[in-house]
Amino acid sequence: MERIPILKMGPYLLVTIQVDMHDRLALALQEDLTERIASTRAHGVLIDISSLEIVDSFIGRMIGNIAGMSKVLGADTVVVGMQPSVAITLVELGLSLKGVRTALNVERGMDLLRASLEGADEEYGGSSPEA
Amino acid sequence: MERIPILKMGPYLLVTIQVDMHDRLALALQEDLTERIASTRAHGVLIDISSLEIVDSFIGRMIGNIAGMSKVLGADTVVVGMQPSVAITLVELGLSLKGVRTALNVERGMDLLRASLEGADEEYGGSSPEA
Repeated sequence: MERIPILKMGPYLLVTIQVDMHDRLALALQEDLTERIASTRAHGVLIDISSLEIVDSFIGRMIGNIAGMSKVLGADTVVVGMQPSVAITLVELGLSLKGVRTALNVERGMDLLRASLEGADEEYGGSSPEA
Repeated sequence: MERIPILKMGPYLLVTIQVDMHDRLALALQEDLTERIASTRAHGVLIDISSLEIVDSFIGRMIGNIAGMSKVLGADTVVVGMQPSVAITLVELGLSLKGVRTALNVERGMDLLRASLEGADEEYGGSSPEA
C-alpha cells in the first residue's frame, strides 16, 4: 500500500496525505498525480493535509512542486485542512507555501477552485485569502 | 497522525483508508465517524479502499460495523475503489461484506448515494449492483 490514492471528484482530483512522506513516496505521488491530471484533464487538485501534525520543509517543497507541475498541466492546487498548529509553525518558521492556495476544508477548497475556474484567465496565482 | 481523516463533501463523508488498520485505529475511526455523522447530519459515508491490497476479515468486519452504525444514524455506506484482486480474494474466501454497497470509484459511489437518497424510504439495503 505504498501509494497514495488519488480520487477523482468531478473536475477535481483529491489527494489525502495520511502517512509519513519519504522521498520515494513523494516521487511516486508526483508521477501518479501528473499522469492522472493528464488522463482525466482535471482542472484542480486538492491536497488534504488534515491528518498531518507536522509540515516540514520537505513536505512544503513537495507541495510546492506538485502545485508547480499541476499548473503546467493546467490544474490549480489548493491545500486544505491544515491544522491550526501547523499554520502557526509554518509562519514561525518562515515557510510560506509560495504559489499554493489554501482553504479551511475540502468544501471551501472546491469553492475556491470553482470560483477561479469561472473567473479563469483573468487573474490568479499567488496565495489568496481562502473562501 | 494516528487518526484517519474524515472529509465532508456536501451531504457525504469521505474516508480514505491508507494505513494498516489495527484495533485502536479502527475504534477511533468508528468513534470519529459516528460523531461526524451526528454533527454534520451526513446522509452518506464513502469508504475508499483503493490503496488496500488486502482486505481480511478484520477489515471486512470493521467496514460492516461502520455501515451498521451509520445506518442507525441515518447514513448509507458505500465502499469504493476496491482493487480487482481484492474482489477476487473476497469472493474466494467467502467474505461478502454483507449489508454494504460497493461502487467502482468515488464518483459512482456518490451517484449511488444520491440515487438512494432521492428514492429514499422506498427500498434499499443489501448489496446492489453499482451504478
